[in-house]
Amino acid sequence: MAATKAPVAFIGLGAMGFGMATQLVKQGYPVTGFDVWPPTLDRFEKAGGGKASTPAEAVRDKEYCVCMVATAQQAQEVLLEGPNPAVPALAKGAALLLCSTVACGYVQDLAQQIKDSGRPDILLIDCPVSGGAIRAADGTLSIMAGAPDEAIAKGRDLLQALSDPEKLYIVKGGVGAGSNMKMCHQVLAANQILSANEGMGFAAHLGLDLNETGKALVASEGWSWMLENRLPRILYPEFKPVASAVTIILKDTSIITSEARRYGFPTPMSSTAEQGYFTGLGKGYGADDDGSLIRVYTEGKGKVGPVKGQAETQDTKVKLVVDLLKGIHVCAAAEALAFAHKVGLDLEQVFELCINAAGGSTMLKAFGGDMIKILRGEEPTVAEGLVALTQDLHKAVDEAQRLKMPIFLGAQVLNILRIVLQHKPKDRSEAPMASAVKIWVA
Amino acid sequence: MAATKAPVAFIGLGAMGFGMATQLVKQGYPVTGFDVWPPTLDRFEKAGGGKASTPAEAVRDKEYCVCMVATAQQAQEVLLEGPNPAVPALAKGAALLLCSTVACGYVQDLAQQIKDSGRPDILLIDCPVSGGAIRAADGTLSIMAGAPDEAIAKGRDLLQALSDPEKLYIVKGGVGAGSNMKMCHQVLAANQILSANEGMGFAAHLGLDLNETGKALVASEGWSWMLENRLPRILYPEFKPVASAVTIILKDTSIITSEARRYGFPTPMSSTAEQGYFTGLGKGYGADDDGSLIRVYTEGKGKVGPVKGQAETQDTKVKLVVDLLKGIHVCAAAEALAFAHKVGLDLEQVFELCINAAGGSTMLKAFGGDMIKILRGEEPTVAEGLVALTQDLHKAVDEAQRLKMPIFLGAQVLNILRIVLQHKPKDRSEAPMASAVKIWVA
Repeated sequence: MAATKAPVAFIGLGAMGFGMATQLVKQGYPVTGFDVWPPTLDRFEKAGGGKASTPAEAVRDKEYCVCMVATAQQAQEVLLEGPNPAVPALAKGAALLLCSTVACGYVQDLAQQIKDSGRPDILLIDCPVSGGAIRAADGTLSIMAGAPDEAIAKGRDLLQALSDPEKLYIVKGGVGAGSNMKMCHQVLAANQILSANEGMGFAAHLGLDLNETGKALVASEGWSWMLENRLPRILYPEFKPVASAVTIILKDTSIITSEARRYGFPTPMSSTAEQGYFTGLGKGYGADDDGSLIRVYTEGKGKVGPVKGQAETQDTKVKLVVDLLKGIHVCAAAEALAFAHKVGLDLEQVFELCINAAGGSTMLKAFGGDMIKILRGEEPTVAEGLVALTQDLHKAVDEAQRLKMPIFLGAQVLNILRIVLQHKPKDRSEAPMASAVKIWVA
Repeated sequence: MAATKAPVAFIGLGAMGFGMATQLVKQGYPVTGFDVWPPTLDRFEKAGGGKASTPAEAVRDKEYCVCMVATAQQAQEVLLEGPNPAVPALAKGAALLLCSTVACGYVQDLAQQIKDSGRPDILLIDCPVSGGAIRAADGTLSIMAGAPDEAIAKGRDLLQALSDPEKLYIVKGGVGAGSNMKMCHQVLAANQILSANEGMGFAAHLGLDLNETGKALVASEGWSWMLENRLPRILYPEFKPVASAVTIILKDTSIITSEARRYGFPTPMSSTAEQGYFTGLGKGYGADDDGSLIRVYTEGKGKVGPVKGQAETQDTKVKLVVDLLKGIHVCAAAEALAFAHKVGLDLEQVFELCINAAGGSTMLKAFGGDMIKILRGEEPTVAEGLVALTQDLHKAVDEAQRLKMPIFLGAQVLNILRIVLQHKPKDRSEAPMASAVKIWVA
């Protein structure tokens, strides 16, 4: 069976790439891997892959190459500028799948550079992924692919081999559109990774049992895919094993905020998350799992002088944490969808992708559709909710202040909601939950 | 001469209180001091004061009492609820000057408690101060006093003894109005203490000489009173001597944000500053000088992986820092004035007080008047500036991101300005500098 499938070069065998490449091997693809870290290559060989000592060697005469390095800088190096780069060595008309999360501007520039290097025949596919290491290894990732039709046709088998059949999204707009889609998805990821840490840090200051609370949160309206996924590492004393490092989500967050600046678009949520990540980075947590950022919230616990919260029962305390998460997830959803609208993506597709990928949250699912209506100038279905959410969040932020802990996202969300409510029509006592999105749009 | 002045009790001989009490001694007042820290009392005795071992003993039969403790909780204790409290022991019709920075709600509640305790004769004056320890010792503080006319008349000599003749503000609105005025002033203080640290931290990451840069900033449009005042401690390797601890400004910041929540008013600037302070508190910097918070920004310097800024010349780099400070100070001014408007203060008086007290900044002085016009629905005098400021700040935030450092206030301000610009009339290419204030008002 293996002989019937075309050989594939796979560059970048990290947490995601190793699983993806190994999945291709399982499906019968002859895969030649390259990575800068030799032990990984040995491990890949044991999993049935081939190994190469340079990017050029990996791709030599191959019609398919998947690149899953961590950053645009690394992609630039392995593809074009480093020693023995891949692009010049690819077979004529080869499909080059760039799965890394990079800025739209970078991948569009890369397409031009490939042409300018004398290889206009190469079919570049801008196809970042989402879903985490487990789904990578299962071949059930969400993939958002932007490229001309000819390139998509050539790469489709490989894209399908890596993705869940229902989670392969062909994004309109060609090269760059896939990255824009991923970027908007990462607005959710960036905020919801930090909110998982912030919520659990708040639970710690409230004196709650973290294991019990984690379960309660996952079962609550404060659910997010990231919370459920990160929880085991947040709870594990040493935050192990490292599934995704702080530097990874920080990199993605910086793509969001720098692209937003380029568009003149406000990202008060992602910018706040980025400051949280930079704070963790400054403490030396960069290489640690991003679930270890609970430390940014808990390090002062019990050491910052007399504190006294008001919440007394366990139920009241858990509700404060749930309300915190709900508030953050409503505004994360609003920022993600408003940014997608700004960059011209198909909002229905963004919504469908996000609720089924790592960006999912109960709030997004419940109110994302209404937010899309508001972004299109239509009336939302649910006509209230924001006033009550603001009042609930108010209590959570009050309590965090009494406990003398930072609550970056929660404090930001409360201000965003206050601004929205301040600008709502005076003849209405209520505001639709989805109208949180109004701060992002003219 | 001493015999001609009425005896005064002085409760709370901390950094500010000791200077104030000693100044009263110099002016010939017989002053009896009380503090929970005995060595301070001994020092006060050497400076010519008397000492008492309880609040009640200090105030016994006196017609004047100044209370300069750090928090509402301490005031409650020394005045009413602790062992041997002051209020029951005061002479009939005594003036009680509460100079501590407390929430409006607290001091109004205190007035009621004093009445309810059977002492409706006591003339409570709500009179927080500003100006720092040096002006406290010089008797040239800014004082904002709210109280009924009768109380002001009784306390006026003492208020004048402690303040600069041009900086004694009688605030309309009675007890609570002085504290509201101080609170709005502290919006500037909270943001400008942190911006001094953030700006200097940014300078450190940019590789600038901090001594030279500090001088350049003080001489620039990025000037604030706080920057100039805190600079020596920011520059001193051990951040000594401690002039004002992190816990003090954090306490004032928490008054701002909790009062704002009570009003349903957004404080995106002060909330961000508060998160910065809580981050410092969590690291164990609470008792340190607030000029030591540069560490929150610099701790990761040189340790967070490869970084490369774009700015090359010293002038370009210093300009980035100046632009950062300008942006923050414009938004701090906007938040302070908008909040003052919300709580019903006389905006001209707020403005005059602030530019002459510790809240002063070049930006407040230049654009505060225009912000007041906008708050009143009038046209500002200066019709442009906000677009250029946003572009300049954009460059600073970009550079900080490249240097992988947190920039809490700068990132927040850029988002605020983007939101304001997004909502400006589409037929205008320009936006008045003072229109930053629009995010705070309906």
